[in-house]
Amino acid sequence: MTKETYKLIESYMKSCMSDSAHDTEHIYRVLYNALNIAGSEKDVDFDILICACLLHDIGRQDQFENPALCHAQVGGDKAYDFLVQNGFSTDFALRVKSCIVTHRFRKNNPPESVEAKILFDADKLDVTGALGIARTLIYKGQVAEPLYTILPNGQIDDGQSSSPSFFNEYRYKLEKIYGTFYTSYGKKLAEERRKHAEQFFLELKAEITCSRTGGQKLLDNVLK
Amino acid sequence: MTKETYKLIESYMKSCMSDSAHDTEHIYRVLYNALNIAGSEKDVDFDILICACLLHDIGRQDQFENPALCHAQVGGDKAYDFLVQNGFSTDFALRVKSCIVTHRFRKNNPPESVEAKILFDADKLDVTGALGIARTLIYKGQVAEPLYTILPNGQIDDGQSSSPSFFNEYRYKLEKIYGTFYTSYGKKLAEERRKHAEQFFLELKAEITCSRTGGQKLLDNVLK
Repeated sequence: MTKETYKLIESYMKSCMSDSAHDTEHIYRVLYNALNIAGSEKDVDFDILICACLLHDIGRQDQFENPALCHAQVGGDKAYDFLVQNGFSTDFALRVKSCIVTHRFRKNNPPESVEAKILFDADKLDVTGALGIARTLIYKGQVAEPLYTILPNGQIDDGQSSSPSFFNEYRYKLEKIYGTFYTSYGKKLAEERRKHAEQFFLELKAEITCSRTGGQKLLDNVLK
Repeated sequence: MTKETYKLIESYMKSCMSDSAHDTEHIYRVLYNALNIAGSEKDVDFDILICACLLHDIGRQDQFENPALCHAQVGGDKAYDFLVQNGFSTDFALRVKSCIVTHRFRKNNPPESVEAKILFDADKLDVTGALGIARTLIYKGQVAEPLYTILPNGQIDDGQSSSPSFFNEYRYKLEKIYGTFYTSYGKKLAEERRKHAEQFFLELKAEITCSRTGGQKLLDNVLK
């Protein structure tokens, strides 16, 4: 890929982005992750890979505005149209589209090509470790969801209900991401980051529980 | 304080709250922190303390809507009015107001009474450790600020500029909070939580840098 082609695709990507959790820095991290992963994989087409990484989230804003849409599907379609309109072959555009459509985790829609598997892992890496925690918390702020909620029995909801919160997102999604990697480098890096996410979540719960447990008893004693 | 009085003040507090980082769970954590701290302090008036804790952030929404306002000052005024209108003495209302006005860190406005110092520490504890990290990230999402920004020289901005981001908030505020405590229990708990915040921030930076450093070199090699 020439530098000019890279700049063209990068410009289009930037024109499609707006929110800060899935902002352009996420795109560059995914691109850099993908290039790092590609070093341990065979027969990688770097043009397809770079293009798919740069454009993989261009459907995000559409999904944000209409949650019924799937950003991977929308992004795949938009990428195909953009590439064909800019002189890329339909075969190239279809291969990029296929990577983008399968980068979102869905049981019936796994990534197939090596580039699709690398994009999938590169994107999932950004949901592991401290980065996964940080990006999810920023997203919770954007959609006005709380850190945790309290169950009707007065206990902290730690994955017992599906009520939206960071705690439930951690239990339903972040905690489970580590078993979904396709590439050896992706698996290795995810495993290295895993303990940092786990330690943070445990500490967060401990800090909240420490304050509640003692404080609630003291309050009961003070109130007549 | 009777349970009825507690419920009355709690209801008023709830009617003033809306955003999820400074949501009602923050208020309860501060109240519980304060009761835990009070056990190691002398001559604490629990009615003043409970009232000040419940009402300390009722000016938040006003400041959110008009950033020129100080939520501590607005909250102190609102608390005073509410208490006097509900039959509390002006002396009681003034003492609560004084705690609320001084709970925000300002060099020329330190907390003076024991209840004001306890509220100050109880509130600051919620900015320490994993909780401080989590609440700040949620807030960054709410105000659409990014995790970090890139300096003109291409490096990650890690406190070098005042450009708004989580990284700069950590460097300018979170990292410095640990030296500001008044009570022995507050100091002790803050110190215990400190290492968890530091570890998380170091790991977050390492994950971002690891991806960038290798990836940028590989990209330069691939692009013609």
